[in-house]
Amino acid sequence: MEEVTGAQLIAEALKAQNVEYVFGIVGVPIIEVAMAAQAAGIKYVGMRNEQAACYAASAVGYLTGRPAVCLVVSGPGLIHALGGMANANMNCWPVIVIGGSADQNQETTGAFQEFPQVEACRLYSKFSARPGSLVMIPAVVEKAVRSCIYGRPGACYIDIPGDMVNARVDRKTIRFPSCCPPPPVSLASNHEISKAVTMLKQAQRPLLIIGKGAAYSRAENEIKELVEVSGLPFLPTPMGKGVLPDDHPNCVAAARSRALLQADVVVLLGARLNWILHFGFPPRFSPDMKLIQVDICAEELSNNVRATAALLGDVRAVVSQLVELLRLNTWLYPADTEWWTNLKEKMASNARISKALSLQNTLPMNYYTAFYHIAELLPKDCVIVSEGANTMDIGRTMLLNYLPRRRLDAGTFGTMGVGLGFAIAAAVLEKAQQTGRRVVCVEGDSAFGFSGMEVETMCRYKLPIIIIVINNNGIYSGVNTETWKEMEKMGDMTTM
Amino acid sequence: MEEVTGAQLIAEALKAQNVEYVFGIVGVPIIEVAMAAQAAGIKYVGMRNEQAACYAASAVGYLTGRPAVCLVVSGPGLIHALGGMANANMNCWPVIVIGGSADQNQETTGAFQEFPQVEACRLYSKFSARPGSLVMIPAVVEKAVRSCIYGRPGACYIDIPGDMVNARVDRKTIRFPSCCPPPPVSLASNHEISKAVTMLKQAQRPLLIIGKGAAYSRAENEIKELVEVSGLPFLPTPMGKGVLPDDHPNCVAAARSRALLQADVVVLLGARLNWILHFGFPPRFSPDMKLIQVDICAEELSNNVRATAALLGDVRAVVSQLVELLRLNTWLYPADTEWWTNLKEKMASNARISKALSLQNTLPMNYYTAFYHIAELLPKDCVIVSEGANTMDIGRTMLLNYLPRRRLDAGTFGTMGVGLGFAIAAAVLEKAQQTGRRVVCVEGDSAFGFSGMEVETMCRYKLPIIIIVINNNGIYSGVNTETWKEMEKMGDMTTM
Amino acid sequence: MEEVTGAQLIAEALKAQNVEYVFGIVGVPIIEVAMAAQAAGIKYVGMRNEQAACYAASAVGYLTGRPAVCLVVSGPGLIHALGGMANANMNCWPVIVIGGSADQNQETTGAFQEFPQVEACRLYSKFSARPGSLVMIPAVVEKAVRSCIYGRPGACYIDIPGDMVNARVDRKTIRFPSCCPPPPVSLASNHEISKAVTMLKQAQRPLLIIGKGAAYSRAENEIKELVEVSGLPFLPTPMGKGVLPDDHPNCVAAARSRALLQADVVVLLGARLNWILHFGFPPRFSPDMKLIQVDICAEELSNNVRATAALLGDVRAVVSQLVELLRLNTWLYPADTEWWTNLKEKMASNARISKALSLQNTLPMNYYTAFYHIAELLPKDCVIVSEGANTMDIGRTMLLNYLPRRRLDAGTFGTMGVGLGFAIAAAVLEKAQQTGRRVVCVEGDSAFGFSGMEVETMCRYKLPIIIIVINNNGIYSGVNTETWKEMEKMGDMTTM
Amino acid sequence: MEEVTGAQLIAEALKAQNVEYVFGIVGVPIIEVAMAAQAAGIKYVGMRNEQAACYAASAVGYLTGRPAVCLVVSGPGLIHALGGMANANMNCWPVIVIGGSADQNQETTGAFQEFPQVEACRLYSKFSARPGSLVMIPAVVEKAVRSCIYGRPGACYIDIPGDMVNARVDRKTIRFPSCCPPPPVSLASNHEISKAVTMLKQAQRPLLIIGKGAAYSRAENEIKELVEVSGLPFLPTPMGKGVLPDDHPNCVAAARSRALLQADVVVLLGARLNWILHFGFPPRFSPDMKLIQVDICAEELSNNVRATAALLGDVRAVVSQLVELLRLNTWLYPADTEWWTNLKEKMASNARISKALSLQNTLPMNYYTAFYHIAELLPKDCVIVSEGANTMDIGRTMLLNYLPRRRLDAGTFGTMGVGLGFAIAAAVLEKAQQTGRRVVCVEGDSAFGFSGMEVETMCRYKLPIIIIVINNNGIYSGVNTETWKEMEKMGDMTTM
Repeated sequence: MEEVTGAQLIAEALKAQNVEYVFGIVGVPIIEVAMAAQAAGIKYVGMRNEQAACYAASAVGYLTGRPAVCLVVSGPGLIHALGGMANANMNCWPVIVIGGSADQNQETTGAFQEFPQVEACRLYSKFSARPGSLVMIPAVVEKAVRSCIYGRPGACYIDIPGDMVNARVDRKTIRFPSCCPPPPVSLASNHEISKAVTMLKQAQRPLLIIGKGAAYSRAENEIKELVEVSGLPFLPTPMGKGVLPDDHPNCVAAARSRALLQADVVVLLGARLNWILHFGFPPRFSPDMKLIQVDICAEELSNNVRATAALLGDVRAVVSQLVELLRLNTWLYPADTEWWTNLKEKMASNARISKALSLQNTLPMNYYTAFYHIAELLPKDCVIVSEGANTMDIGRTMLLNYLPRRRLDAGTFGTMGVGLGFAIAAAVLEKAQQTGRRVVCVEGDSAFGFSGMEVETMCRYKLPIIIIVINNNGIYSGVNTETWKEMEKMGDMTTM
Repeated sequence: MEEVTGAQLIAEALKAQNVEYVFGIVGVPIIEVAMAAQAAGIKYVGMRNEQAACYAASAVGYLTGRPAVCLVVSGPGLIHALGGMANANMNCWPVIVIGGSADQNQETTGAFQEFPQVEACRLYSKFSARPGSLVMIPAVVEKAVRSCIYGRPGACYIDIPGDMVNARVDRKTIRFPSCCPPPPVSLASNHEISKAVTMLKQAQRPLLIIGKGAAYSRAENEIKELVEVSGLPFLPTPMGKGVLPDDHPNCVAAARSRALLQADVVVLLGARLNWILHFGFPPRFSPDMKLIQVDICAEELSNNVRATAALLGDVRAVVSQLVELLRLNTWLYPADTEWWTNLKEKMASNARISKALSLQNTLPMNYYTAFYHIAELLPKDCVIVSEGANTMDIGRTMLLNYLPRRRLDAGTFGTMGVGLGFAIAAAVLEKAQQTGRRVVCVEGDSAFGFSGMEVETMCRYKLPIIIIVINNNGIYSGVNTETWKEMEKMGDMTTM
Repeated sequence: MEEVTGAQLIAEALKAQNVEYVFGIVGVPIIEVAMAAQAAGIKYVGMRNEQAACYAASAVGYLTGRPAVCLVVSGPGLIHALGGMANANMNCWPVIVIGGSADQNQETTGAFQEFPQVEACRLYSKFSARPGSLVMIPAVVEKAVRSCIYGRPGACYIDIPGDMVNARVDRKTIRFPSCCPPPPVSLASNHEISKAVTMLKQAQRPLLIIGKGAAYSRAENEIKELVEVSGLPFLPTPMGKGVLPDDHPNCVAAARSRALLQADVVVLLGARLNWILHFGFPPRFSPDMKLIQVDICAEELSNNVRATAALLGDVRAVVSQLVELLRLNTWLYPADTEWWTNLKEKMASNARISKALSLQNTLPMNYYTAFYHIAELLPKDCVIVSEGANTMDIGRTMLLNYLPRRRLDAGTFGTMGVGLGFAIAAAVLEKAQQTGRRVVCVEGDSAFGFSGMEVETMCRYKLPIIIIVINNNGIYSGVNTETWKEMEKMGDMTTM
Repeated sequence: MEEVTGAQLIAEALKAQNVEYVFGIVGVPIIEVAMAAQAAGIKYVGMRNEQAACYAASAVGYLTGRPAVCLVVSGPGLIHALGGMANANMNCWPVIVIGGSADQNQETTGAFQEFPQVEACRLYSKFSARPGSLVMIPAVVEKAVRSCIYGRPGACYIDIPGDMVNARVDRKTIRFPSCCPPPPVSLASNHEISKAVTMLKQAQRPLLIIGKGAAYSRAENEIKELVEVSGLPFLPTPMGKGVLPDDHPNCVAAARSRALLQADVVVLLGARLNWILHFGFPPRFSPDMKLIQVDICAEELSNNVRATAALLGDVRAVVSQLVELLRLNTWLYPADTEWWTNLKEKMASNARISKALSLQNTLPMNYYTAFYHIAELLPKDCVIVSEGANTMDIGRTMLLNYLPRRRLDAGTFGTMGVGLGFAIAAAVLEKAQQTGRRVVCVEGDSAFGFSGMEVETMCRYKLPIIIIVINNNGIYSGVNTETWKEMEKMGDMTTM
C-alpha cells in the first residue's frame, strides 16, 4: 500500500492538470502544499502580500491560457486574495486560489483563523468548494481547472483544511482524472454569420472593436485576415491593443471618440458594452448603431444594446467563419469612403495635438512629453504594464503595442494595485522561456503604492522589470485639490 | 408629459418581452403590479402558497421556452418562493421571480417584512437585481428575461421596493429595450463532429441518452432523424421521456441498467452525468466507456467523465450537424448485433417480470398493478405529472410518454412538492390553447401533501386536472417502519 | 469499544440538551435520525410540508423557552424550511433546523439534492454549521441549542451529510458537553434604573408598552407588580397581549392610537420600535416623546428613537429592578389625571363603535359581528392563533387574551402561512401536558390556504384544534378588486 | 431652502456622531466625501492601500472606543478593505467602512467597478446597508456608529452610490439623529456574582485571565482593585497585556503553561476560550477546571467549556460588582499557598532560561538577545506594535507593557499585515494629543512586507514611529526549509 498525503495529492493533481506556477505566501497550514508543489516540479514564487500574489497568478492565466495557483493561508490570507479573484473574474481570466483553512474538528470552537472560506469566495468565483475528503482532491482540482478555463474563464477556489494537508490515504482508493482537454470550441450558426456579412456589406460606417477576449482566445491571425480581407477600420479596447499592431494602417484608435460616435455597424470581437465602451449608449454611440456581436458567453449577447447579429461562439473560430464567407463574397470595404476620410482627418488632427503637447517644455513635464520619450525607448516586443488614473489613460494612447497580450492594465474592474503583481507574473514567464524580453511598468505614483513592496520580490527573483513612476502627486491628502482639478481637465484629452 | 407608475412599467416591460403568465399571491406592496399586468393582457393566476406558485411559473418556462413570472410579496412571500427558484435553476428552466420589498427609506428601521432580498436570491439564480430607479425597470426586466433563457436557462430575480410601485415618472425619460431575440444558437466544431461520428462507427455497444435539455431545445425532430439514420438504441432520462415515444422500437428503457453498464460509447444529448445517471461512474457504467457529450454549457463538458468528443452547442443544432455528417457517411448501426440481442433479451425478461407483478391480485394493490390499469386509461397526448418516491420511480417505467415535454416530475433537484403547481401550469397552458388535452397527476400520498391545498386553485380556475394518489402510507410518523423497509425493497425494481 | 452512529449521536445530544420535540418530513438521508430521536425519547411529529414543520418547531421554542427541532431532507427540504427560520429569527424565537445533505464525497459531482446548505442558512440564523466529523456532533448540537436561547433568541442550523448519519465511531473518543445552563441573566445599571424612575415620576402622560419579548422572558408576575405599584396605563403589542390580561383596568389597548400619539414618556418592555409600533416616529408618536427602553439586545437600544434611559438586560430582571426602586419611592401615578380621563374617554367611545358594528345584521356578516360571537364562546385559557389581513388586525382587538403566551400570530415578519403549524405545536404541547386546553385558529381564507393540508396532520395526531375561517374572499384573482377596496376601508378601523 | 449634498450629509453625520478620523484612498466617486469630511473638521489620512487603511481605522476604534472610518472607492477598493473588516470583527473592535459604489442607474449595465458591495460585506460586519436615499444618510450613519460600539463591538459598512454623493436635497426634509449615547452598561445577576465569589473562596489554584475585552472596556482600575482585594494571580492574553503592568507582582505570565494547566478555578475577564487559550480544553487545561466567565456577549458564555458562574455584562461593571462583594467578605487569597510557590518557582526557572538565552553571543543573534536589548531601550509608555510568527510570540514574553491598550498585534484572527496600519493609527492619535509618546513596531521580515509601502505614509505625515525588523529570513521561497524547521523549534519556547 502506497500512502500519499493531502499535500501531495494537491500537488500531483495540479501537475496533472498542467498547472505550472504557484504564487503565494505560505504558513500554517499550507507550507507542505508549497513544498509538495515544488517537489512535483511546479514553480513557487513567494510574494509579500496575498493581494499581489493573486494578481500575479491571474496574469499567468491570461498570458498562457492555463491557470496559475494563488496559494494562501487561512482567514486573512484568503481574504487578502479576494481582490485578485474579483479582478480575474471580471476580466474573464482563469485563476485558482487554494486556501488552507482551520482543522475541521476545530470548526465552531474559535479555531486559528477559522472562517467560512468557501462561502466567502462565492461572489468572486465560478466554482468554490472543499473536497469532501482526501480521495476527492484530484477530482476537485480537475473540476477547478476545467471550470476556470471552460466557457467564460474566471476564478475558482479550493479549500484545504489543515487536517487534510498531512493526512494520509491509500493511493489505490483514489480516482485520478486525466488532464482536462483544452476548452471546447463552438461556432456561430450559419444564419447569423450570413446576416453579419450582409450587414457589413450594407454598412456605411462600419467599425470593428477588438477586445481582450479576442486576445485571450489567440484570435490574432484570424482577425488579421479579417481586416485584410474586409479592409475595415478597427479600434482596440485597452487590453485588445496589440491583437493587431497599434500602428496598423486600419487602426483608428487615434480617432476613438469619433469612430464610436459615428459608426453605423459595430462588430464587437470579444469585448463587452460596459463602462469602457460607454455601454454602447448615446451620446457616445449613435442611437441607430447596429450591432454584430461575437462572444463566448450567451448571456452577454444583446446586453445593453440588442445584437442584430448574435454570433455565439469562440471568437477565434467565429472570425474564421466570417473570413471564410467574406472570401466567398470577395467583398472589400473601399478605402476611399467618406468614413475613412473622416476618420483619417480626425486621426491626423489628434496626432498634431498630441505631438504638440509632447514637445512642450513645461515644468513639471506633462504626461505627453513623458510618454513621448518613454515610447521612443520601449522595445517593440516588451510587455507594458500600466495603471493609474491619467497615467494609464494617456499612456494607453501614447505607448503602442505591437504584439498580442503584451499590455496588462487595471482592466474591466478598474483595479488599482495590479501592476507590480502583473509585472512579476509576466517576467517570471519571460524568464522561464528565456525570451530576453523586457517587462516595463508605467505607474502612477498612487497606483505604485498599492504593492510597492513587491519590488523586493522582483529583486529576490532577479526579474527583468523596469518600473517608471509618473509622479503626479496623486495621493490625495486633502491639501492640493487644485492640482487634482487641473489634472482631471487634462485627463479629458484621453477621450479624443 | 405622460406619467407612468412603477407597476405599469413592470407590466409593460413584461408584456414587451412576451411574458404571458404570472402566478403568485399578492398583497402589499405588489397588488398594483398584478393589476397592471392584467391590464396589460398578461394572465394572472392566484395560488395558495408562493411555493407552489413558483413551481407553476417554472413549468411554464420549460413547456413554452418563455419564462413566466412568480409574483410575491416581501420577506416571507419571497422566501417561500426560493424552492421554486432552486428547482428551476437546477432543472435549467427559465423563471422570473418578482418580489415586492420594503420602501427604500424604511430600510434599516425595521420595516414591514424588510429583508435583503436581492442577496437572498443569489444562490438560487443567474441574475438578481433591484432596478436603480423607475427609469431602469424596463432594462432590468429585459435583462432578467434574456438572462433566464440565454445560455443554460435558469431563474432570475427582480426586486421592487414598495415605493417604486406607485411612484410616477415621465415616460419620455425611459429607455425601453425591444423584445430580446430568441436564444442565440451555437454549433459544435467540425472537428469534434467528425470525431464523434468516427467514434460511433467504431462503437460495439453504442447508446444515446436523451435528456430534458433535448426536450427543452425542441430537438425532437432532429433526434428522431438521428435515431432513424443511425439505428442506435436510446435511453431517455426521466424528463427526456417522450422526446421520442417510449414505445419507439429503438428505446431500451426497459433494459436501463444493462444498457448503462455495458455501453462502450455513450452519446449524451442534453443530459448531465449527475446522480440520475449515477455520475457516469463504475459500477453503474463501464470504466472503459467513451463519452460523446452534447451540451449547451461549456462547464458541463467532461464533468465527472472526460468527454472524448465534446460537442458544445445547442443540442438541436448539434444533432443536425451529426445527422448531416452521418448521412454523408451512409452508415447504420446494424440491427443484428450482439448488443441489440443482449438488450432485447433483457427488455423482454423485464417486461415479463413487470407484467407478472401487474397481474398480481394482492391487497393492498402493488404499484405495478395500479400503474398497469392507470396506463390503460391514459390518453397518449396527456401531460403526466409525477412525484413521490416509489410512486415516481415505478411510475416512470410503467406510464409511457409519446410526445415531448409531456412529463413533469421531481427533476434534477428531486423536489417533493412540485406536482400540483406543475399540473396547474400545464393545465393553464392547455386551457389557453383549447387543446382539450388532459393533465394527470400521479402522486405519492406524502408528495401530494406538500401542496394539497392547490386543489382549490384548480377548482377556482376550472382546470382539467386529474389527480391520482398512490397511497402507500408514506408519511413517516415513526410507527410503521416495517412498511418502509418493504417498500424500499420493491423500489429496487426500478433500476431493472 | 462501543460504537455509535451519527444518527444516534444527534439524537442523544438533542436529548442531553433537553430538546423534546422534532417536527419534520423525513426521507433520505435523515430517516435514521428521526428513528434515533424517537428511540431516545424525543417526540417526532410528521408534517406535510417543511414550511409548516418549521413554523411549528419555532412556536415550541417560544412557548417553552427550549428549542424544538425542524428535521428536513437535503436541498429542497431545507429550502422549504427557510421561511420558518426567517420568521423565528425575526420574532427572536429559538429553533433548530437539522438538514440532511449530500454525502461529502459526492459533493461537486452533481449529487442528489446537493446544495451549499450551511451557506444558504446564513441570512436566516445566528449559527449555521456542519460538524467537522462525528466526534464534533455533540459539541455542535450543544452550541446550536445554546446559541439559539442565549442573548436575543433565534434560529440555528446544523448540517448532517448523509455519510455521517450511518457512519460509526467509538463512543470513547467523543466529548459530550453537558446540558447548557439556562440563559444567563443580566441587569441594567443602577444609574439607568434611577434615571428611568425619575423620568416616570416627572411624566405627564406615561405609557408602558409590553412586547412579546416580555412574554418570552416570563416577566408576567414582575410586570403585574410594576403596573400595580405604579398605576401606569399599558398597551400590549400583538403577541404581548396576555402578559397582563386584556381586560386589566390599566390596559388601554382600546385607545391604542391616542395612547401612542400623546404619551410623553414611553416604557418599552421587550418590544421594538419597528413597523408594528410605527418606528416610534411622528406622526404616530409625539416628536417630544421620551423613551425608557428595556431590551436584552444592546444593538436594539436607541434604534430609531434615542433612549433617554437605556436599560440593557433581561426584561424580567430589569422590571424587578424598577419595581424595587419604585417601592422604595412609594410613588403611584394618580388615577385621576387628565391623561387617564382622556384615555378612558377614547376607550369608551371606541367600545361603543365596536359594539355597534358587532350588532349589525348585515349579509355577509361583518368582521365585528363574527368576532363578537366567537369571543363569547372562547374559553379564557385557550391558545388563540390568528393570521390574515383584516382578520388578524380586527381579531386582535376583538379576541381577548387573559394569559401570557396564548396568542400566536403573523408576528414581526408578518408571515402569512404560520397559523396551522403554530396551532399544531401548541396543541402538541397541551396534549403532552394533558391540560385539556383548546387551541383555536382564526384564519383569513387566504391565510388558511398556505398550509391547509396540515389539517391532515391535526387529524392524524388527533390534536384538539378548532379552525375558524373568516372567508372574506381574500384570494386575489384579479376580478373582485372592488371588494378589496371596501375591505381595506374597514381595515382602517383597526388603528382606532 | 438650504440644499446639502450627499457628501456633506455623510460628513456632518459622522461629525455629529463624534467620528474624528478617516483613513482611506480616495478616487471616483468618493473624493467629495473626503473633502466634505475635512471641511467638517474630521482628520483625513491618505494611505497607500485600502488594506492598511482599514487596519489603521480599526485600531483607532480599539484605542479610543469610538470608531474611525475607512473610506474606499467602489469594487476593488472595498474588497481590499475586507481584511480590515474581518480583523476588526474578530477582535471585537469598532470600525466603519464607507464605500463608494456605482451610480444606481448604471447597475446591471456593467458600470465602473460595479459590485454587490452591501452583500459582499455581510460576512465581515454587524451591519451592512445602503441608505435608501439622501434623506436616510444621517440615520444610517447613526445606526452604523451605534451598532459598531453597542453590544460586542465590530465592523459596519455603509454603501454610497456615486449618484448620491453629489445629489442635493433640502436640508429640512431630513431627520438628523443626535449623537448616539455611550454603550449601555449591563450587570451580572447577584446570584451569579455570589456564586463566583463562593467559588473563588473555595478555589485551591485560582487564576484570573485578563483579555483585550477588559482593555477595551477600560476596566484597568477595577481589575487593579480586584487583584489587590483578592490577592489572586493573573495572566494577560496578548492584548490583555498592560491592563495591569506586566511587572505586577501577581502577574504569572512567565509561568503561563503551568498556570493554565493546573488552575482549578479560572476567571475569564473579557477573554475567549478560543485558539489563543487552547479552547480551554485538556491537555492544556485541567479537565476539572471550573470556569467563572465574564463577557459582554451572552452567546460567548459556556462556549467550549461550561461556565459554572456566567457573569453576563460589561466587564468593567461586573468586576466592580465582584470587588464590592469581596470587600464585604474581606477575603484574601493567601500569598503563601502551594499554588503561589509552584508558580513562582516556575517563573524563576523560566526567567533564568530566558536570561541565559538573552546573553548568548551567537551569530545570527537569537530572538532573546535581540529582544533583551530592545526592551532595555523602550520607554514604558510607548505603544508596542508587533507581528510575525516567532517575532511576535517571543516578543510578547520579552517586551513588557506597563499601560493598558499599548500593545497591538495580530490578534484573534492572527492577521499578518496589520502592523504598519496599526502603528500609523496609534501615532496619529498620539500626535493629535501631543503626548510625545513613541510608537514602536517590532516586525518579522515577512510581516513587515505586507504593508511596507506605508512607510511612505508615515513619512508624509511625519509620524513618530520606529520600525524594528527582526530578519529571520521568513519569506518562504522553497529553498531554506532547514532554517524554518530550526526556527520552529525555537518557537516552542514561547509556551514556557
